[in-house]
Amino acid sequence: MRKRKTLEKIKPYSAGKKYKNTIKMSSNENPLGPSPAAIRAIKKDLKNINTYPDPACSNLKKALAKKYKVTENQIITGNGSDELMVMIAATYLNPGDNIITGKNTFSEYEFAANLMDAETQKAPMTDGSFNLDAILSLINSKTRIIFICNPNNPTGTYIGKTKILDFIKKIPEDILVVFDHAYAEYVTAADYPSDRELIDSKKNVVILHTFSKVYGLAGLRIGYAISSPERIADISLTKQPFNNNIPAQKAALAALSDDGFLKKSQNINEKGKKYLYKELKNMGLFFYPTEANFICIRLDRDSREAFLEIAKRGVSIRALDSFGLAGWIRVTIGTEKQNRLFIKALSSYLSDKGV
Amino acid sequence: MRKRKTLEKIKPYSAGKKYKNTIKMSSNENPLGPSPAAIRAIKKDLKNINTYPDPACSNLKKALAKKYKVTENQIITGNGSDELMVMIAATYLNPGDNIITGKNTFSEYEFAANLMDAETQKAPMTDGSFNLDAILSLINSKTRIIFICNPNNPTGTYIGKTKILDFIKKIPEDILVVFDHAYAEYVTAADYPSDRELIDSKKNVVILHTFSKVYGLAGLRIGYAISSPERIADISLTKQPFNNNIPAQKAALAALSDDGFLKKSQNINEKGKKYLYKELKNMGLFFYPTEANFICIRLDRDSREAFLEIAKRGVSIRALDSFGLAGWIRVTIGTEKQNRLFIKALSSYLSDKGV
Repeated sequence: MRKRKTLEKIKPYSAGKKYKNTIKMSSNENPLGPSPAAIRAIKKDLKNINTYPDPACSNLKKALAKKYKVTENQIITGNGSDELMVMIAATYLNPGDNIITGKNTFSEYEFAANLMDAETQKAPMTDGSFNLDAILSLINSKTRIIFICNPNNPTGTYIGKTKILDFIKKIPEDILVVFDHAYAEYVTAADYPSDRELIDSKKNVVILHTFSKVYGLAGLRIGYAISSPERIADISLTKQPFNNNIPAQKAALAALSDDGFLKKSQNINEKGKKYLYKELKNMGLFFYPTEANFICIRLDRDSREAFLEIAKRGVSIRALDSFGLAGWIRVTIGTEKQNRLFIKALSSYLSDKGV
Repeated sequence: MRKRKTLEKIKPYSAGKKYKNTIKMSSNENPLGPSPAAIRAIKKDLKNINTYPDPACSNLKKALAKKYKVTENQIITGNGSDELMVMIAATYLNPGDNIITGKNTFSEYEFAANLMDAETQKAPMTDGSFNLDAILSLINSKTRIIFICNPNNPTGTYIGKTKILDFIKKIPEDILVVFDHAYAEYVTAADYPSDRELIDSKKNVVILHTFSKVYGLAGLRIGYAISSPERIADISLTKQPFNNNIPAQKAALAALSDDGFLKKSQNINEKGKKYLYKELKNMGLFFYPTEANFICIRLDRDSREAFLEIAKRGVSIRALDSFGLAGWIRVTIGTEKQNRLFIKALSSYLSDKGV
């Protein structure tokens, strides 16, 4: 019994780790916990979990359509945006096709391509940012999808509206451009493109969102995609009937209107960012300016050594060797207390190594 | 932008419907609700739903391994057994391959094959049962997977151990045999094969299970597959890292050891089955003897008319035209009260039609 040959290319996913007795700052989870409104909404509906979920996820789609001023048939939900990446790949990739993404970015675009026996071309990045010209130059007759993570995980960098809209114009009609906006709610840059601008610019643009980050619902696995009705109709063909469970649907709907929690999460991130910027500068460390809830820091030391040594001092961070950034780490921006602990652990590690 | 050609074969899933103000007996959900232990387990862990779930689903796998006396590497969990069907297809089906299943069975095997650009061969059924000889005669060089639903949805029929083990022996080494045991916990027939016997009979046997039926957790989407370590390792390559969310993992683990709820669910099913058999016989209706929590009844009337007319009388049942059984309906065995209401609604409908 032989598995498909393309599966040989798949490497096991490297998840953010939590070393024993440490604070976890390795997976960009919301340090405030989940939205309390989400918890209430889940509890309210637990008596019905013997019944199948709404396959259409109607109430959530209605609320999302209102938020983005699009129609409901421009939205599809998934078991995390991870599932949507696989669904998009299953919709458009034939064996031998290729996708293009950046060299140092989220690994699941490549996973989705591998599942469908497609190749992944990785464009070089510039200063931690997607290099759009490098992507354009990789396009060939086999290119079907371009995945751009904006802000990018794990660098935190972003690309502004003008560059993105200009890029979209240059993309041939038979190529889909997918923007992963997992961290969009943390962006403060004024020239970050709105979802609506991107969607309106071309039928073949898809934007991915998740409830795992600012909404604090990583444990529920719920994300969504926005696009043209045509592309959503295509992708919907690959949807398993009941892909979003009841707690996920209920919690996401409640979290979406919990503005207080959203603001609080954004504020604590901004405050933490300022503190961490200041301390990292004091330590003379290079990092990329971030538009997300994490910071990507260059230590020029072995990533796994850094992970272990910082963990021994109480904080789990993410070693970035699996992202092709050996010598770099990524730390989630946490609460005031967590950020202080991280700086203390990092300083102690570096001074013990004589840096 | 053209979607993959194979997606044109996909028909939208036809879910069990609930007509307004009716009792839903159309989706084989547990009429007792969810296991109370499951609800408690979910509540206990809601504060952590801002964190990612355990990607390995370790605690649940440990408990399942113990239950089935297999090793943990013989089990994989999925977002409902639906997801496992798609994962199995993604593991073994190349374009142009085929799967074999029965003519009147669950539609998601064919969905999974369609996703992977494979063909579905449907063997004729005999008296509502999978016809194993008919399946054997359909095997050709392109056959990679055989899906057998046992007991079968929607007929409720089952195949005994001797026939199944003999069948497995005749299957060539490069073909996977998947047994869908979604309703196994309802079986009372003494000669129903145990999971262990099937798994031990050949490396290429996979058994699917779900928490959606007797465990009352359809709304959480959690299922699992048992097989040889080799096949589970293959299938694991297609797994999205966080496919089972926290409430699903916690609830399934709790439900698994809630023996009281299991027994109660089995008892109410047996009682309901006896009552329904008696009433249906009195009405002179033909039905298949069932080993599941539903009964498949021949009305020889348009299925959709039957659905609407019975719904108008307070009960939603499943019209079986989408299963290739026009003229038949499927009703979930419910509580005493629900079963009585169904019989009343059915009698009223048939007598109004002069049957």
